[in-house]
Amino acid sequence: MADFEEAQDKLVLGGARPPLQDPQERRVVAYHESGHTLVAWLTPAADAVHKVTVMAHGRALGVTQQLPGEDRHNYSRSELLARLAVLLGGRTAEEIVFGDVTTGAESDLTGATRLARRMVTRWGMGDLGLVAFQTDEEHPFLGYELAQGHDYSEATAARIDQEVQRLLAERHTYAHQLLMEARESLDQLAQALLQEETLGQEALVRLLGPRPAMAEEKPD
Amino acid sequence: MADFEEAQDKLVLGGARPPLQDPQERRVVAYHESGHTLVAWLTPAADAVHKVTVMAHGRALGVTQQLPGEDRHNYSRSELLARLAVLLGGRTAEEIVFGDVTTGAESDLTGATRLARRMVTRWGMGDLGLVAFQTDEEHPFLGYELAQGHDYSEATAARIDQEVQRLLAERHTYAHQLLMEARESLDQLAQALLQEETLGQEALVRLLGPRPAMAEEKPD
Amino acid sequence: MADFEEAQDKLVLGGARPPLQDPQERRVVAYHESGHTLVAWLTPAADAVHKVTVMAHGRALGVTQQLPGEDRHNYSRSELLARLAVLLGGRTAEEIVFGDVTTGAESDLTGATRLARRMVTRWGMGDLGLVAFQTDEEHPFLGYELAQGHDYSEATAARIDQEVQRLLAERHTYAHQLLMEARESLDQLAQALLQEETLGQEALVRLLGPRPAMAEEKPD
Amino acid sequence: MADFEEAQDKLVLGGARPPLQDPQERRVVAYHESGHTLVAWLTPAADAVHKVTVMAHGRALGVTQQLPGEDRHNYSRSELLARLAVLLGGRTAEEIVFGDVTTGAESDLTGATRLARRMVTRWGMGDLGLVAFQTDEEHPFLGYELAQGHDYSEATAARIDQEVQRLLAERHTYAHQLLMEARESLDQLAQALLQEETLGQEALVRLLGPRPAMAEEKPD
Amino acid sequence: MADFEEAQDKLVLGGARPPLQDPQERRVVAYHESGHTLVAWLTPAADAVHKVTVMAHGRALGVTQQLPGEDRHNYSRSELLARLAVLLGGRTAEEIVFGDVTTGAESDLTGATRLARRMVTRWGMGDLGLVAFQTDEEHPFLGYELAQGHDYSEATAARIDQEVQRLLAERHTYAHQLLMEARESLDQLAQALLQEETLGQEALVRLLGPRPAMAEEKPD
Amino acid sequence: MADFEEAQDKLVLGGARPPLQDPQERRVVAYHESGHTLVAWLTPAADAVHKVTVMAHGRALGVTQQLPGEDRHNYSRSELLARLAVLLGGRTAEEIVFGDVTTGAESDLTGATRLARRMVTRWGMGDLGLVAFQTDEEHPFLGYELAQGHDYSEATAARIDQEVQRLLAERHTYAHQLLMEARESLDQLAQALLQEETLGQEALVRLLGPRPAMAEEKPD
Repeated sequence: MADFEEAQDKLVLGGARPPLQDPQERRVVAYHESGHTLVAWLTPAADAVHKVTVMAHGRALGVTQQLPGEDRHNYSRSELLARLAVLLGGRTAEEIVFGDVTTGAESDLTGATRLARRMVTRWGMGDLGLVAFQTDEEHPFLGYELAQGHDYSEATAARIDQEVQRLLAERHTYAHQLLMEARESLDQLAQALLQEETLGQEALVRLLGPRPAMAEEKPD
Repeated sequence: MADFEEAQDKLVLGGARPPLQDPQERRVVAYHESGHTLVAWLTPAADAVHKVTVMAHGRALGVTQQLPGEDRHNYSRSELLARLAVLLGGRTAEEIVFGDVTTGAESDLTGATRLARRMVTRWGMGDLGLVAFQTDEEHPFLGYELAQGHDYSEATAARIDQEVQRLLAERHTYAHQLLMEARESLDQLAQALLQEETLGQEALVRLLGPRPAMAEEKPD
Repeated sequence: MADFEEAQDKLVLGGARPPLQDPQERRVVAYHESGHTLVAWLTPAADAVHKVTVMAHGRALGVTQQLPGEDRHNYSRSELLARLAVLLGGRTAEEIVFGDVTTGAESDLTGATRLARRMVTRWGMGDLGLVAFQTDEEHPFLGYELAQGHDYSEATAARIDQEVQRLLAERHTYAHQLLMEARESLDQLAQALLQEETLGQEALVRLLGPRPAMAEEKPD
Repeated sequence: MADFEEAQDKLVLGGARPPLQDPQERRVVAYHESGHTLVAWLTPAADAVHKVTVMAHGRALGVTQQLPGEDRHNYSRSELLARLAVLLGGRTAEEIVFGDVTTGAESDLTGATRLARRMVTRWGMGDLGLVAFQTDEEHPFLGYELAQGHDYSEATAARIDQEVQRLLAERHTYAHQLLMEARESLDQLAQALLQEETLGQEALVRLLGPRPAMAEEKPD
Repeated sequence: MADFEEAQDKLVLGGARPPLQDPQERRVVAYHESGHTLVAWLTPAADAVHKVTVMAHGRALGVTQQLPGEDRHNYSRSELLARLAVLLGGRTAEEIVFGDVTTGAESDLTGATRLARRMVTRWGMGDLGLVAFQTDEEHPFLGYELAQGHDYSEATAARIDQEVQRLLAERHTYAHQLLMEARESLDQLAQALLQEETLGQEALVRLLGPRPAMAEEKPD
Repeated sequence: MADFEEAQDKLVLGGARPPLQDPQERRVVAYHESGHTLVAWLTPAADAVHKVTVMAHGRALGVTQQLPGEDRHNYSRSELLARLAVLLGGRTAEEIVFGDVTTGAESDLTGATRLARRMVTRWGMGDLGLVAFQTDEEHPFLGYELAQGHDYSEATAARIDQEVQRLLAERHTYAHQLLMEARESLDQLAQALLQEETLGQEALVRLLGPRPAMAEEKPD
């Protein structure tokens, strides 16, 4: 079984690499992945975490794996807000624990920004109202390279940027509060990762308790 | 007959897909289509709805089909405003019923925005007066990819965006009021869709009563 | 003779099409063409109308044909202002009579906007003074597609747009006043078009009386 | 001799065309060319006029021919200001005499604007100081078509436009004053052109007297 | 051994060139390299300097070589701030000592600006918050040449520039204070470089004493 | 020897051309070159002038030749400021002496503007601080033609333009004061050039006295 799982991981994540040499760098990665995991665990609308590891795979120094609940077609605004918070959770843990941050969050930030931009420009989920814009992203081949491919004014471009940054700033604040309140769990999770290197769902339940039920409250 | 109708639908909409698994996702789709249908039913200048379904076809999870009254050449401003309201009706129903919204309105928003932009830039139906602008859209091949293809200033681009967003915001408010006042019909329609999966014109008349006559009042 | 005239019309306008089915649509077209015709008839600097029809030709649902007075090389500002007013006369009649407007004015608005832009940017006939700008229009092949082909600043582009919109707004006001004062003639003309389908110069003189002489007053 | 001169004119200007049919159009052209000629005659820094005609050549309906004083390499600011005034003199005469203006000044305005732009951007002769800008004009092949080829900011582009328009407006005012004060000569010159069609230097001296000597005053 | 080291240097830096002729130019280079070295020596988060030379190699008139502490994957904000300060240290020494500056800092400024821009746009290390932007740099082939390849508004572009300049200005101030306080060491180091031409780690320790331990304080 | 020098000049400057015909044009050129020469002679940080001529070579109507002091690698800010002043000195002399200016300074202005722009954008010598920008100039092949190749915002572009114009305006003021104070030398130099056509270093020392020693003062 273990062999099969390893093979599957290799397919998805790239082969495992030798462990990091530098102890401080290992600590940063452990807290970064713990941040992702803990925000997902404590946010009801987020997809469940079934595995987290500080074993480097491909270019990633650590991985937090989530499973969507079922075969889904549409996503609600509250689910997407949860996803933003999970993406920002790694960097937020670095800030809280080390008072310094690293370049390791680059792909998290890229992904969160792109998702927030889609919420604002395609799905009418920002404060610009029910409107959809043709953005540069939709021309994968020529769009970025050749021109300002969007169909809106500079004034609208500035409002879109403001909305994107507002969405991200609010989820950053949310993740920060969540992790500050659960600081003890964050330390335990990072500690366990440094010792065990990889934690599955059972180990997570043992460490963190069961996930809170999906709240009935409306999103902000 | 049923076979023929199925074949025709397949041609237009893509083949039917297996029903949605997730009950919450089915409810969202049922209310979304009910929103389109009810706004069209209650807006005299809108085209008549002859069929609505929550059976997924191709990429769409549900479909509301309208028939234009006759072979038409021109469209009046009031007819286009009605069309905008119908397009926004699906998302508006989601807001009212669930207090959350989904990514499912993407093509509605794209279509409504494009229509509103044409009203402002080609047909002199916004507050910019009797003027027509060469927009990016008219260069389907090179326009978007290669350059800022329009022939007006940034200041005018910003005024166009404002007008487009004003038109959409006003129709959103209109649809919201209409559906709030007809909330009972909205629930009945969604309930019927969840049970029957597809409703034809006769079923709609039975549920909603006859459509109101075309009002004689002028548009705003 | 009639055959010859038909052949000539077909050459210029595209073949005649079957009459419009929808009575309301026919009324809109009749008033639209009557608006063009009446503004031309009552504006001394405009070219004479020699024929107007609500028979659809090619893509046009109706046609108002004007004849320039003689073989001309240059055009004066007052003649061009008259041409703008005639172009806007069709839509203006729709506003006055129906309180609603249609998409049918698209090519009128495009033509009027392009003419107003040339008056401002090439012929020094706006408030920007004696100056000529290289605009995008002059690069029919590459200009629009590839780049912002003009040689002036965004601030100047905004002033050009303002001037273009001012010229159009003033002619719109002029046409509106003219048609309001001549509302009775407008109704008679539209009525005659609905009955006769096509009116030549003699019929127009019978309906509207002789054209006013060219005024000696200076243009605004 | 006359044959030789005709041949030479044909080479430079295109073949002569049949005279204009419309008497009003002939009057406009006669005053337009008289405006060019009179401003040149009365502005000491302008090149001497040796011939003026209202015979149409190629696309031009009239021609005013000037001869530079000697083989020149550089041009002074005062000479270029004189050239701007001569270029604007034709349109200015139309304004004064007819209270209306025509499209016939298009190439004058294009030439004057291009010259004024070079004074500001290449030769440090505007209020922007001793600075030279790379403008779009210097890329005859690709510049206009493909991109915003200049190397300065939008703010500078706006200041350049202001300077260009200021230079042109000041020369317009100068030409207007000059022609208002010499209105009698303007009428005589136009009258003579309508009768004679072409006037050489001797006829001009007979009509207008000798040219004023080059003033010693500094340019503004 | 010396031969091997020379060969290695040649590979990395290009072959050594004849010494500079002009004594003032040699002094400027000696102080410039001493500035880089001293800022690195006194900033705990900076990589260690193991060699500094005023022998010209390839296009560089002097070289300061640093060794990263271990095989690193991520970099922290405080390490990157230290790197900025080291890059600006050469120019800063010129300012302090000569009251004049030279073109010799061009590649330092280019490198520091590019690094600061990445901190702001990719790694969320500026005041714009946790957001990542697609910048022009990421399209090495087409990006710069063909278009404005970034996906943000002019307003955001201006904020990015402000952040980049703020980061650089703060590190400039830091380097200035550090070198003013250590002016005596700066003079000794430059003097030694003018005499010895190249200094290794042992010579540096003898001149400057041991490097200060990594401070525990948080970055600003 | 003279033959060799002539051959060398021909190589560098293009062959000598016949002298200017127009006496006023010769006077303008003589004062223009005297302006360059005198500003260089009186500015300690400027390269030494070894020859000045009003014989036309290639496209230039006159030439002032400077020799850099030694084989140089870097240039200081004060040397570059001196170079700007020398470049502007020709036009400045025209202003002072004739109260009018000519198109003859075009290449001086282009060169001075390009140099000032590099000081601001590459070498951190303006008020923007220690920062380097990727400008359009660095893409000689595609940069200008195809796109806005720079990597900074419009706001930064405007600040760069302001700095460039400030640097040029300050050097213009400096050159103006210098030449006003040395007006007598300017007249003598121009007179000598009109008589001798070419002056070597010895003749310059005889006319102007020895160059002032390099001042110890810091640049502004």
